[in-house]
Amino acid sequence: MVALCETWVQKLISLKSRSRGFHLITNELVQQVPEISRFTVGLAHIFIQHTSASLCINENADPDVRLDLDAYFEQHVPRNAPYRHSNEGPDDMPAHIKAVLLGSSVTVPLREGRFALGTWQGIYLGEHRDQGGARRLVVTLQGQYRP
Amino acid sequence: MVALCETWVQKLISLKSRSRGFHLITNELVQQVPEISRFTVGLAHIFIQHTSASLCINENADPDVRLDLDAYFEQHVPRNAPYRHSNEGPDDMPAHIKAVLLGSSVTVPLREGRFALGTWQGIYLGEHRDQGGARRLVVTLQGQYRP
Amino acid sequence: MVALCETWVQKLISLKSRSRGFHLITNELVQQVPEISRFTVGLAHIFIQHTSASLCINENADPDVRLDLDAYFEQHVPRNAPYRHSNEGPDDMPAHIKAVLLGSSVTVPLREGRFALGTWQGIYLGEHRDQGGARRLVVTLQGQYRP
Repeated sequence: MVALCETWVQKLISLKSRSRGFHLITNELVQQVPEISRFTVGLAHIFIQHTSASLCINENADPDVRLDLDAYFEQHVPRNAPYRHSNEGPDDMPAHIKAVLLGSSVTVPLREGRFALGTWQGIYLGEHRDQGGARRLVVTLQGQYRP
Repeated sequence: MVALCETWVQKLISLKSRSRGFHLITNELVQQVPEISRFTVGLAHIFIQHTSASLCINENADPDVRLDLDAYFEQHVPRNAPYRHSNEGPDDMPAHIKAVLLGSSVTVPLREGRFALGTWQGIYLGEHRDQGGARRLVVTLQGQYRP
Repeated sequence: MVALCETWVQKLISLKSRSRGFHLITNELVQQVPEISRFTVGLAHIFIQHTSASLCINENADPDVRLDLDAYFEQHVPRNAPYRHSNEGPDDMPAHIKAVLLGSSVTVPLREGRFALGTWQGIYLGEHRDQGGARRLVVTLQGQYRP
């Protein structure tokens, strides 16, 4: 039996600018954080340093799910409400609301060097501005590895 | 004074099939993950490997809260919207929307061998299909224990 | 090179009673949990032990964002729905719904002794009762420090 060691990895990464909607970023995360493959057991915490974009987890297959999610949030978080905070444009306050509804981080189990996602799960960036800029993430991995 | 040791426990567990609604699963988690009792200080991360069910925390006493939550989400995430993703039935796309609104995981502090929940808090499975199948969870415990 | 040590800190803290709305609590957390400054790399998990209040992350500058968020949730989680759970007043069941939409905890990266928040991000208490009491939080820090 080999004892397991503990470690932490924390990286600041950047996602390229995207237009409004939900974007599957699982592969991009794995490529930018190859250290995931070291962990036998652990957790990955992925945090977005912005207030008008979000992270969540949903279907990785049919892209229609992402279009329907965008349509739902566009309809249910209206642009034409009498917002006080309006000087950054009509998509700004709705983006803040979507960000708190969806959340600023996801935590995903790590297992045998991979995200322990279900078969149909992927990690989404929710871009809530019509045209967001590049988005900064802080990815924190912790757990055990075989030395 | 006794030094504390650190450890990780990660288990894949299954919850039985349930009908649509919010279901209190705190006791079932404690029974399936008795290792919780070992931890003096730590965190429990509970993750659902599905895209049409969710986990959240709310009232553990009056079951009417769970019925009212279900009614709210049925009304505010409509079935009859013109969804593109519709081939798995009218309850499917609403289930994906509810899952992103509520989230795929909860993290609960561990303290003296127990979930450090408030007096009125319990852990809920949100089953968002009319009849979901068994649901797989990945439970990851980490923290300190007295050896 | 100096090896890093690992540690855990877990504290129960209390936030003073506030009226309904979103309240910026970042500075109050830093003051009540000065141990944050010890961590070189880590995570802070902040958990609220109540079912009618929540924690989330959003804009730390313009207070109008917090007023608009409150207005959005007041409008979209109505008081006058035919709730079964109504014996604690018309603001109670809406508070439970808002709590599950927004969540019971936030996890924030720690880096060089500080919350690794974005420039515009702050941590919010969502008080969803018209007049909540004092609110108990469990703050769990873990990570590495230079001894």
